[in-house]
Amino acid sequence: MLEVAIIGASGYTGGELLRFLDVHEKVELVAATSRQYADTPIRKVHPHLHDLDLKFTNQSPSELDVDLAFTATPHGASMNIVPELVEKGIKVVDLSGDYRFDDIGIYEKWYNLEHKNPLEAVYGMPEMYRDQIKGADLVANPGCYVTGAILAGIPLVKNGLVDTIIADSKSGVSGAGINPTPATHYPNIGDNVVPYAATTHRHMPEIQEKLRKYGDVRVSFTPHLVPVIRGIITTTHSFPNEDVTSLDVMDLYTEQYEDEPFIRVLDVGEIPRTSSVRGSNQCHIGCFEIDENGRLVVVSAIDNLVKGASGVAVQNMNLMCGFAETMSLEAVGIHP
Amino acid sequence: MLEVAIIGASGYTGGELLRFLDVHEKVELVAATSRQYADTPIRKVHPHLHDLDLKFTNQSPSELDVDLAFTATPHGASMNIVPELVEKGIKVVDLSGDYRFDDIGIYEKWYNLEHKNPLEAVYGMPEMYRDQIKGADLVANPGCYVTGAILAGIPLVKNGLVDTIIADSKSGVSGAGINPTPATHYPNIGDNVVPYAATTHRHMPEIQEKLRKYGDVRVSFTPHLVPVIRGIITTTHSFPNEDVTSLDVMDLYTEQYEDEPFIRVLDVGEIPRTSSVRGSNQCHIGCFEIDENGRLVVVSAIDNLVKGASGVAVQNMNLMCGFAETMSLEAVGIHP
Amino acid sequence: MLEVAIIGASGYTGGELLRFLDVHEKVELVAATSRQYADTPIRKVHPHLHDLDLKFTNQSPSELDVDLAFTATPHGASMNIVPELVEKGIKVVDLSGDYRFDDIGIYEKWYNLEHKNPLEAVYGMPEMYRDQIKGADLVANPGCYVTGAILAGIPLVKNGLVDTIIADSKSGVSGAGINPTPATHYPNIGDNVVPYAATTHRHMPEIQEKLRKYGDVRVSFTPHLVPVIRGIITTTHSFPNEDVTSLDVMDLYTEQYEDEPFIRVLDVGEIPRTSSVRGSNQCHIGCFEIDENGRLVVVSAIDNLVKGASGVAVQNMNLMCGFAETMSLEAVGIHP
Amino acid sequence: MLEVAIIGASGYTGGELLRFLDVHEKVELVAATSRQYADTPIRKVHPHLHDLDLKFTNQSPSELDVDLAFTATPHGASMNIVPELVEKGIKVVDLSGDYRFDDIGIYEKWYNLEHKNPLEAVYGMPEMYRDQIKGADLVANPGCYVTGAILAGIPLVKNGLVDTIIADSKSGVSGAGINPTPATHYPNIGDNVVPYAATTHRHMPEIQEKLRKYGDVRVSFTPHLVPVIRGIITTTHSFPNEDVTSLDVMDLYTEQYEDEPFIRVLDVGEIPRTSSVRGSNQCHIGCFEIDENGRLVVVSAIDNLVKGASGVAVQNMNLMCGFAETMSLEAVGIHP
Repeated sequence: MLEVAIIGASGYTGGELLRFLDVHEKVELVAATSRQYADTPIRKVHPHLHDLDLKFTNQSPSELDVDLAFTATPHGASMNIVPELVEKGIKVVDLSGDYRFDDIGIYEKWYNLEHKNPLEAVYGMPEMYRDQIKGADLVANPGCYVTGAILAGIPLVKNGLVDTIIADSKSGVSGAGINPTPATHYPNIGDNVVPYAATTHRHMPEIQEKLRKYGDVRVSFTPHLVPVIRGIITTTHSFPNEDVTSLDVMDLYTEQYEDEPFIRVLDVGEIPRTSSVRGSNQCHIGCFEIDENGRLVVVSAIDNLVKGASGVAVQNMNLMCGFAETMSLEAVGIHP
Repeated sequence: MLEVAIIGASGYTGGELLRFLDVHEKVELVAATSRQYADTPIRKVHPHLHDLDLKFTNQSPSELDVDLAFTATPHGASMNIVPELVEKGIKVVDLSGDYRFDDIGIYEKWYNLEHKNPLEAVYGMPEMYRDQIKGADLVANPGCYVTGAILAGIPLVKNGLVDTIIADSKSGVSGAGINPTPATHYPNIGDNVVPYAATTHRHMPEIQEKLRKYGDVRVSFTPHLVPVIRGIITTTHSFPNEDVTSLDVMDLYTEQYEDEPFIRVLDVGEIPRTSSVRGSNQCHIGCFEIDENGRLVVVSAIDNLVKGASGVAVQNMNLMCGFAETMSLEAVGIHP
Repeated sequence: MLEVAIIGASGYTGGELLRFLDVHEKVELVAATSRQYADTPIRKVHPHLHDLDLKFTNQSPSELDVDLAFTATPHGASMNIVPELVEKGIKVVDLSGDYRFDDIGIYEKWYNLEHKNPLEAVYGMPEMYRDQIKGADLVANPGCYVTGAILAGIPLVKNGLVDTIIADSKSGVSGAGINPTPATHYPNIGDNVVPYAATTHRHMPEIQEKLRKYGDVRVSFTPHLVPVIRGIITTTHSFPNEDVTSLDVMDLYTEQYEDEPFIRVLDVGEIPRTSSVRGSNQCHIGCFEIDENGRLVVVSAIDNLVKGASGVAVQNMNLMCGFAETMSLEAVGIHP
Repeated sequence: MLEVAIIGASGYTGGELLRFLDVHEKVELVAATSRQYADTPIRKVHPHLHDLDLKFTNQSPSELDVDLAFTATPHGASMNIVPELVEKGIKVVDLSGDYRFDDIGIYEKWYNLEHKNPLEAVYGMPEMYRDQIKGADLVANPGCYVTGAILAGIPLVKNGLVDTIIADSKSGVSGAGINPTPATHYPNIGDNVVPYAATTHRHMPEIQEKLRKYGDVRVSFTPHLVPVIRGIITTTHSFPNEDVTSLDVMDLYTEQYEDEPFIRVLDVGEIPRTSSVRGSNQCHIGCFEIDENGRLVVVSAIDNLVKGASGVAVQNMNLMCGFAETMSLEAVGIHP
């Protein structure tokens, strides 16, 4: 059994990691840390995990003796924890933004932090780097918006079809994390639609850096908060520079993703909805419509806490440890 | 493998049955019928079941050759289907109200229907009739409100503690089924709380008939619709006729349910919430507070589509067929 | 023109007071205080009040020179502000709990505070104390749950029909105020139903003290939070000690409230919903059903921020100052 | 007093017309027709209008003797009613799509209907055609998405700044009308985001035809349904063909709309939200951010039932009849 720790397990991504790992047949969950909730039974914080008979601990990285650790810690905190873990020979999947960028300068600019401990990491998107993840000691788990946008964008960029992508995303509120703020206060976001960081969201440079692996592309990104708990719809708008049909476009996606265990390319006429992937690690991609102006619409749907965070983190662990890639992630979405 | 059919598989309870049965290791799903959607791929109606490569069929009962059938058909329709299935030797779990009542007169009065085909059936609440279900050919699956109210009520009635229970329930909208109506139209029920059938809901006599197996009790029941997709909170108010403490009451529940695989008796201070059981077959029961007037509050939380419908139906199938009772129902709730 | 100040204007009740007072034809709004937002334009905190060209100030009570002040300050804070205002000859409507109780002992027990500055105040429920409010210098505005429960209860108690009332309330989240907490965090309360303080909510003794003006009655109260922004449905359960019909009961309500400008007694068959009073100062009361066990259901619907807080506060001001009682409160609800 | 009828008053736009007209000091509401609800008291359909002591009637146009009529009838139905009204000398504000297009061919193509009764009409957007509306006998009220998109687009097109606008809209469910459908069923759209008609919505050609009055522009439009009752956020993405700053852009909007009674141009840094205009006739426009790729984001927020339908209809009536333009539309939004 792989001995695993979750560092920072009291948040929503921590809760989802616990949900998947507790039933993972190759994993023994040995520690779930939380400074705030040390010695508190996990079910007091995550009441749906009623049967998980474990308490949060307040162990430091140096006290952890495990095979693999998930660092579900905030941006800026991971960089102070991860190096010690890696040095001890612990495999790490980091859910923060600290190790996502090739270009540290971009990270430092957009996160407004000095990066004290750069390390070589593999970007944890299996659809891009499956083979590298298999051999990695440190995997940097992608951002939630980034996952939705990249998966919708790869076939377009790779095939040289577009040079600009506008990604207009609508996100559930759990993406903002477990800490209450005015923006996430029910009376403020219930029955409401709120654009934010319209041109300044830090997931934009991440989308752009990763999509540029496939070709020259400019990405413009605007996120919105909607009264939904989980899920991101990313609506991409682009103008293909060749004369293509909806079916041509769909074929590119089918070809790109046909062997992917978690990507579902919808038929023309099927609509990606967040409800179709609620709670699951699937990504639905569809729409593929082209209007009179030559604008192409491709839409992706993910659960921001699963395929956008903890699900793909477990998928990465499965790859790093030689388990079946889908292990413990097989469940379909909960609808309605 | 047990060959299974779902009759009436296009509704929400049908969708949940499909979700559980598709991954059930002892079951082969051989037919999912729907008159309205015959020959339509299931995923067109249940988009979260994208990988379920099956079409709805329009088979009549006489054309079905299976070991067990779920009849997820409306009240009044089941009675025209179930007898033929039973006669053919097919085990049946009926999700309608048609076979729930011992007293056909109560059924006919509250459902305003003549019952043409009464049959002997076991009431499908494992917490009441586990042994009988194991040997049954026809199981009548309980109503969703009924499950929440009975599980909260049994220890009180059985121990002679109360003679009247007021059950005030708050239900998610999926309980009304998949067919759109003014009451379930988003602009009408979004951001709203709506009491309905305040003294005339047909689940009241069902609660009462079943709780009276444990003692003489009068049940008063009022349901409300709230802007929630799944879940029922049943708040029971009663006046114990003995001097008891919260812990005394909690002990009664613990004792009653300690061996139950799906009931969780919460500690004093823990709060039952629908979110804690969202998508799962668990029932959380808690609160156990007593006020200055001697009123006791006990609250249960279930997912109306799972423990209140399709989950318990699969649980009943597991019992009827000698499988492990929890098979394919192990998943915990999805929170947040 | 009556010169008016709002002390503590940055919360939700402050926002609603601003909405009503800004268009009140007899009122000049001269100050809206907020320690946290001093010098900030009001529209930055209350973006719907875009045209209200006023900034929050940080004036202390001694600096205010107005005819009337609303103290929309927390429990425990009002008692340090109100006496000075009253002494200066400023009429006060206090929205906190500090001056609501006849029996200071009950206040101190349930609010867990020592009351340093008791003062004579009139309880600000016009349906109970219209004449006294007209002559009052200090009016204690009722609690939101209390308003819903008392208005549903008065005719029952006054006519000696019941000796126990169980009030089961479902409240919108704005009742918890503008400050974010885990309980009001969208992912926690969205798609959820959460009972809380099942026997220990401090509005219970307030309901009981006031209803006992009309007769001997025991009140049991349990609140629930539901994913609604505004509105409270209070479902009262009671057992009339006389043989009455629904129409008899309805007649008692019609008689009690026929001259009330904001109470609407619904016909038998009409359903009180929070959406019917959203944003308005009306209270809808209806249901009046009696079941086989002799249990009577009466349901009230209010907007907790309006009839349950700021609307009735303005109604009280109108009465205290000799204005038409409905002035600036005429607007009906917003539905859907 | 202006005698007014509402034809088709049982829907949501009918309800909003009733809300505004019932308190309009220059209007006498003499008829509210509904074939389905003839002789039913209005409050049974619109329970928030409890005091409106009027019944729906089933009068045909020929039976109406009024000064002005609102036709809140479906597309395709208005064309059979409006001509007779106009001929009788009744001023008409038509809320359907039947008279919105200059080019009947576009109408017939996108609505898939033959237009039997073309008439000259003024397009009812006061910000475009205030003077013409003043003298009009027939005003064609704009579509809800169209209003949000046009108001966000005019200054860009008029100043020759852009040649393509992508409008990505997020709409509340009331925009789909009062009739229940699977798409508007609470369990289907609650906690969900659903793109639809991604390139084929009939409001696209209407946006384009109207914006082209100001310059050559291509409009691409994609709507989404979100779990909100009222409100549309329209996020426009465009690439200005000149080097402009956010402040430059904001200045264009301020200049365009400074005399408009219902448009509010937000400061840079203020966020348009649907909650800020909930229930009101205001349109908030803001954002004005430009990213590294030269993409400009401008966002508008309206209430689809008010500024997007019934509010602007009353505004048009006010203009047609020489009343103050804002009469009965002064109320600000309801937040939270």
